[in-house]
Amino acid sequence: MEAKKGSLISPEIQELLKSPEKTVQIRALFEDMHPYDIFVLCEDLENIEIAECIKALGVPLGIELFQEFEDELKKEIFDCFSKEWMADILEEMAPDERADFVQYLSEEKTEEILPLVARAERIDIKKLLQYEEGTAGSILTTDYASLPPDITAKQAIERLKLQAFDKETIYYIYVTDSDRRLIGFVSLRDIIVALSHKKIEEIMHKHVISANVSEDKEVVAKKLSDYDFLAIPIVNDNNHLVGIVTVDDVIDVVEEETTEDIYKYGAAGEYIDYMKASFLNIAKQRTVWLLILVFVGFISAWVLEKNSFQLETVVALSFFIPLLLGAGGNAGTQSSTVVIRGLATGDIQMDDLFQVIKKELAVGILVGVFMAVLVSLRALWLEKDLKLGITVGCAMVVTVMLATTLGAFLPILFKKLKWDPALMSGPFITSIVDIVSLLVYFKVAMMVF
Amino acid sequence: MEAKKGSLISPEIQELLKSPEKTVQIRALFEDMHPYDIFVLCEDLENIEIAECIKALGVPLGIELFQEFEDELKKEIFDCFSKEWMADILEEMAPDERADFVQYLSEEKTEEILPLVARAERIDIKKLLQYEEGTAGSILTTDYASLPPDITAKQAIERLKLQAFDKETIYYIYVTDSDRRLIGFVSLRDIIVALSHKKIEEIMHKHVISANVSEDKEVVAKKLSDYDFLAIPIVNDNNHLVGIVTVDDVIDVVEEETTEDIYKYGAAGEYIDYMKASFLNIAKQRTVWLLILVFVGFISAWVLEKNSFQLETVVALSFFIPLLLGAGGNAGTQSSTVVIRGLATGDIQMDDLFQVIKKELAVGILVGVFMAVLVSLRALWLEKDLKLGITVGCAMVVTVMLATTLGAFLPILFKKLKWDPALMSGPFITSIVDIVSLLVYFKVAMMVF
Repeated sequence: MEAKKGSLISPEIQELLKSPEKTVQIRALFEDMHPYDIFVLCEDLENIEIAECIKALGVPLGIELFQEFEDELKKEIFDCFSKEWMADILEEMAPDERADFVQYLSEEKTEEILPLVARAERIDIKKLLQYEEGTAGSILTTDYASLPPDITAKQAIERLKLQAFDKETIYYIYVTDSDRRLIGFVSLRDIIVALSHKKIEEIMHKHVISANVSEDKEVVAKKLSDYDFLAIPIVNDNNHLVGIVTVDDVIDVVEEETTEDIYKYGAAGEYIDYMKASFLNIAKQRTVWLLILVFVGFISAWVLEKNSFQLETVVALSFFIPLLLGAGGNAGTQSSTVVIRGLATGDIQMDDLFQVIKKELAVGILVGVFMAVLVSLRALWLEKDLKLGITVGCAMVVTVMLATTLGAFLPILFKKLKWDPALMSGPFITSIVDIVSLLVYFKVAMMVF
Repeated sequence: MEAKKGSLISPEIQELLKSPEKTVQIRALFEDMHPYDIFVLCEDLENIEIAECIKALGVPLGIELFQEFEDELKKEIFDCFSKEWMADILEEMAPDERADFVQYLSEEKTEEILPLVARAERIDIKKLLQYEEGTAGSILTTDYASLPPDITAKQAIERLKLQAFDKETIYYIYVTDSDRRLIGFVSLRDIIVALSHKKIEEIMHKHVISANVSEDKEVVAKKLSDYDFLAIPIVNDNNHLVGIVTVDDVIDVVEEETTEDIYKYGAAGEYIDYMKASFLNIAKQRTVWLLILVFVGFISAWVLEKNSFQLETVVALSFFIPLLLGAGGNAGTQSSTVVIRGLATGDIQMDDLFQVIKKELAVGILVGVFMAVLVSLRALWLEKDLKLGITVGCAMVVTVMLATTLGAFLPILFKKLKWDPALMSGPFITSIVDIVSLLVYFKVAMMVF
């Protein structure tokens, strides 16, 4: 419901856009509204109409509205503007949003527009584009507030008044020396409560927590959230302040990373915008994993072939294969889920390996015996075959025990090898457990029959 | 590595705690540090030693340190204090943290300590405990900054100086009328840049975005992040301001909800602290789901039994069962993963149902045909049986197609029924697809042979 409420007011906005005083009218309508609310109301308009609204609202509200759209849509709306307007928009956007967006434009477009952008902003764009995807550099903004150490609290407030308009935040202020080296941190709260003649260097915290520009953005997000910061300063190897990462960007990073992880769990390939992607693209995304899993499946077919003489003598053996593999797969998925998530949140550490394996072994035996009893009873009751009951029961205990243990061990092993533990996801664990279960099943059957 | 670095400095802290001037020494060591850093350094100490550090650091740093620990550990550390100290700690804690913690204490303990707590804080605790688990009320804090509308910007700064010490944030200030009704919102940035004689009611935003105290905390988290707020005001049904939810709590909510969702995906039961839980508890958590899945598995065994005559005639049919079920399960897991995540982030809306089903049908057919060719070739090549190849191939197409479609449809259906779509997780989808695939397989075999 929420995302669609824009359509209700669309005709009204379209009416306003036809009026000769559209600028005044649009402004009057949206003036006191949050950019996100305007975005929701405008979502269902045509791109050209959205561009009109942005023009009418001007700086800063129009730019803020523009920034609310997804990159793909941003590009389409951007194309509705004249070149001069395009350059203006780029100049006024938040530095981090701008760098992301420029990366999304075609090379020709960038070459056409960038020369029209003011020099300072052009240099800023180029600087931010250098940073590698996925690093702190790729999400930082250069619109941070900073102060020299030798001014008073009162002077600081005067300076912050001037900085307030174009800084992402003035609540966290970073203190730099004449060489732009980060030497301290002070919050606006600290400045407000300080006596007005106190020097910033007396108020500031000298033990500044910062992150390096090349650090993984996920690590930076975790740092910011561990410290409950509103922003974290980003420095280069020489401790020069290059920018800040703010908490709202961190929330986005967390959401993105969660989606990526969940896709890996489901072996669903890389994230793509589902509603916009073609079915061909979606199919392509998923085929890689399915293929890998099919080839793993060939191994299970081979195991069955090698043991076909057993299946021929006791057909009933095959009745319990899906149940056995399902139980193993599920038990393995459960333990790998818990361990992968635990590794991601830090609840489980690498040196907990032995304890985790011991626990999963115990859980596996306990749960396995319980399930074995159930499945054996089912086999006895319906097939009236004691040997079959024993075979299925024993295989179940061993399978579940191996499944929970492998489900815990493999993600930890992956992490140790510096691979992503989330790759040892449900489908993958299930496929591996399939093969193991079949081997166990026929081994037991061989001994019993 | 990071979480364990505390152990390196533990002996040093223990040494300091033995000295007669431990208060001075501990303060000197930790003075300029962030509570999170002190927490990391203290993690490996005994509870009684941690309590000593907290005492030495006093208000506010000691309390902030205490708040860093998990509830379970908090309780153990709390038990090391005298009753008077316990009451003091409760008085000084942040209201939201405090209410959470009190909920965690035993009833006897609460009855023993609460009468010693100052009246204002006691009332606050009781008020916050009324709110239901999972609502905005359960995560709000009452330490918000507020101002009346009729004072000037200059007076506002003077008042904020007084409020600064015990408020969670003074960057977002809420304006209330004499009846505590929320009538406006103003940021410290707005106040700083305003002319000093301007009235708050002239500066404030009258269109305040707030959340109701009974709203789901996940919804509140999404609202705050959509608007890029640092805090969001929480009101009751009469628009009285009852508290605020801050961005750092929202990050915690997002992380918690992600873990819950991921556990559901893996059918791993409710979240429990893995490293601290006994294997019995862990086994209990998981058994419910495994049992459900075993009973679903009984159905697949029954399907096989009913078709045993086919398996007896063509034993090779059974070779491809794990492969077929695996492929179906994986394809279903992929599509359910994408749809469940899409529903959670809002990328997929309820009215997209038909489009999603159409897409998954197309993806299923395309991917299914591709996999069918591979599997048929495998069957032809190794079994030299054309009929088997055709059976396996046809069953594969239908299975994968049904799997992707069901994987997309069931979570959406669940959402429509107001159940949690994440319940239609990997293991569950896999079990359902297992049965469907077997039915398809034998149907096709019946027709071919």
